[in-house]
Amino acid sequence: MQDGYRMPGEFEPHQGCIMIFPERPDSWQYGAYAARKAFVEIAKVIADSEQVTVCASASQYDNARAALPAHIRVVEMSSNDSWARDYAPTFVKNNAGELRGVDWGFNAWGGLYDGLYFPWDKDNQMARKLCDLFEKDVYDKRDFILEGGSIHVDGQGTCIVTDPCLLGKGRNPQMTKKEIEETLCRYLGVSVVIWLPCGIYNDETNEHVDNICAFTAPGQVVLAWTEDRSDVQYEMSTACLETLEQSRDAAGRKLKVHKLPLPKPVTITKEECEGLDFCDGEPTRTPGERLAASYVNFYIANKNVVMPGFGDAMDKLARETLQELFPDRRVIQIYARDILIGGGNIHCITQQIPAQGC
Amino acid sequence: MQDGYRMPGEFEPHQGCIMIFPERPDSWQYGAYAARKAFVEIAKVIADSEQVTVCASASQYDNARAALPAHIRVVEMSSNDSWARDYAPTFVKNNAGELRGVDWGFNAWGGLYDGLYFPWDKDNQMARKLCDLFEKDVYDKRDFILEGGSIHVDGQGTCIVTDPCLLGKGRNPQMTKKEIEETLCRYLGVSVVIWLPCGIYNDETNEHVDNICAFTAPGQVVLAWTEDRSDVQYEMSTACLETLEQSRDAAGRKLKVHKLPLPKPVTITKEECEGLDFCDGEPTRTPGERLAASYVNFYIANKNVVMPGFGDAMDKLARETLQELFPDRRVIQIYARDILIGGGNIHCITQQIPAQGC
Repeated sequence: MQDGYRMPGEFEPHQGCIMIFPERPDSWQYGAYAARKAFVEIAKVIADSEQVTVCASASQYDNARAALPAHIRVVEMSSNDSWARDYAPTFVKNNAGELRGVDWGFNAWGGLYDGLYFPWDKDNQMARKLCDLFEKDVYDKRDFILEGGSIHVDGQGTCIVTDPCLLGKGRNPQMTKKEIEETLCRYLGVSVVIWLPCGIYNDETNEHVDNICAFTAPGQVVLAWTEDRSDVQYEMSTACLETLEQSRDAAGRKLKVHKLPLPKPVTITKEECEGLDFCDGEPTRTPGERLAASYVNFYIANKNVVMPGFGDAMDKLARETLQELFPDRRVIQIYARDILIGGGNIHCITQQIPAQGC
Repeated sequence: MQDGYRMPGEFEPHQGCIMIFPERPDSWQYGAYAARKAFVEIAKVIADSEQVTVCASASQYDNARAALPAHIRVVEMSSNDSWARDYAPTFVKNNAGELRGVDWGFNAWGGLYDGLYFPWDKDNQMARKLCDLFEKDVYDKRDFILEGGSIHVDGQGTCIVTDPCLLGKGRNPQMTKKEIEETLCRYLGVSVVIWLPCGIYNDETNEHVDNICAFTAPGQVVLAWTEDRSDVQYEMSTACLETLEQSRDAAGRKLKVHKLPLPKPVTITKEECEGLDFCDGEPTRTPGERLAASYVNFYIANKNVVMPGFGDAMDKLARETLQELFPDRRVIQIYARDILIGGGNIHCITQQIPAQGC
C-alpha cells in the first residue's frame, strides 16, 4: 500500500477476534441452536489467548449475552448472516505498528448474478461499524467486491486466491485479472498474487481459498488433499498442488506444501434440510447435497489453533498434521458439522484483529 | 461503595461522552430532523475535548454516520429513545483510577404507574451494552430503578436528588427513603444525600435534579431561579434554596448557591405538536403546554461547558453566569428548543465517561 500498510499473516500476534452470533433461519437449521453452541465453544477457546468480540442483533442480544461468559464482549450489531471473515474489515498495519481497516464491497458472494442471499446491506455496513468500534481509520474500498475468505496472505508480500472466486462474474466483472491483482497488491501490501485454479468442490462461495489452502508460516502452506482418485476433488487438489509447486513467493522462496487430508464427503440429511427456512422461495439445501467440508478452514489464535472436526476417521490425522505445523500452539478440534451446514467453517466465522505495535 | 468505587463529579476529567441519535417520532417533531441538527452540533462541541460515541439504531446508522464527522464514533445500538443520561451506565472509579459501570433499572420514568412510554426494554439494555463496548465491569443493580439525570454528585461524597423523583410511586415504591438513600450511598460512594423538595415545574421526569440544580465544583451549585413571584416556579426554586442553604456537604461545608436565571416560560406551539406522532393512542404534547426549559441542563466537557439557549432575553445572562463559574472552560450556548420539545436538554442527552487513572 502506498502509505506503507500491509495485511499481517494470521499467525502474527492478534489483539483480538470478531465473531457474529448466528441467527438467520435459512442458514442455520432448527433455530440456530446447534450452531450457537458450536460458535460459543469456538469463542471460548479463542478467548483463552485473545479478546473476543461477538456481534449480536438487537433481538439476539440477550441470548448472546447469556450464552457467552462475561469475559467475552457482546456488542449489538445487525447483519444479514454470521460470516465475520467475509465482511469484517481486513486490518492492515504499518511499520510503526498502527492499524487501519479496509472496507471492501460485499455482495453476498456474487450479488444478483450468483450470490447466496438478498439483501446484504447490513453485512456490507459491518466493516465500517467495526472500524468505528475498534477506533481504526478506514480505507473505503467498497467499489471493489472482496470477501476476507477469498484471500490468504503470508504477511511478507504474498497473497493466495482462487480464479473462480476472484474472477467470478458476480464480483468485479468490469475489471481485468491484472487490475484485480493490482488492487490486491495495493490494499494488502503484497507484490505476488498466487492464483489457484480452483477450491473445494461445491463450495458455494465460488471456492474461497480459505477452504482449500492456508499459510501456516511464511513459505509454508497446507493444501486440502484426498488420495481418492474417484473423487472430483482429487483433480482439483492436484491442480492446486501443481500451481503451488510452480510458484515463488514474494521473497523468492518455493512454497513448502503440506497435504492436509480431507474428510470423507459430508452430505446433508433430509432432517437437517427440513430445519432450514426457504431462501427467496427456494430451499437453501437439498437432502444428499455435498457440503464443502475441509480441515483447512481453521483459525490461528495467539496460543491455539481452532480447527473443525466432522466425526470422521480423518479427524485425528488432520489434527496431528496441523499440530506438527504449529508446535508453539495447541491445536483444538471442535465438532463443526453444525457450522458446515451454514455454508462455511471456523475460519469463515472469525476475523482476527492484528496486535498494535511492532 | 464497599470496594472503594465512587462516582466522580462531572467537572473531573473525562475519557469521553455517550450520546444517542434521535429517532422516536412521538418524541422528536417532524422526523427528528431539527433535533438531529442540534444533537450533531452538541456532539461536535464536546468532541473538541473528549471522544464522543453516538449510538444509532440499525435503521439510522447510515444517516448518523453521514451527519457526524469522522472523528466522532458511531456505533449501532438500539434504544427506545435518546436519553443517554438516564440509561447509559453511571461510571464509578476507585483510587487506583479503574472504572466500572453501574447498570440501574430503567422503566421510562415511572413504568406503568406514570412512565412516559412503553416498552422501555431496549433502553434498559443499554447500560450493559455500553459497559461491554467500553470494556468495563458491571454492577448489576437493575432491581433498583434510577435514571442518571435524577442524581448529581460532587465526587467528594455528596449527592443531590429530588423527593418527587426518587420517592415517586413509579420507581421503587417498596423501599423506604432511608433504604433508597443507603442504596445511593453504597453505589455512588457518597455519605450525604441532599433531598430537594422539587424540581422544575411540569418536568415530566418527576422533576429530575439535573434540570434545577447542578454542582459546578465541590461546595458550589447552580440553582435554576426566577424573580417572578407570579410564576409557580418561584415557590419551587425558593423551597430548594432553603434546603440547600440548610445543608452541609460530606466534607461539612455549607454549599455556595449561585442563582442561574430561568428563561421566560417556554410553551409548545400547535405546529410543533402536529409534527409529533401519537404515543399509545394519545398526543404526547398539547399546544400551549409549558416545557421544562432550564439553563441548568448543561454538560461539562473537558474544555467546554455546553449549555442550552432558547432565544430568550435571559440567554446572555445565563451564559455569563456560567462562564464566571467555569473560568477554565469555554461556555458554548446551543439553541436547544428542538431538544427541549423532546422532553429534556443537553445534560439529558449526554453521559460522561470519567478518565481512567488518577
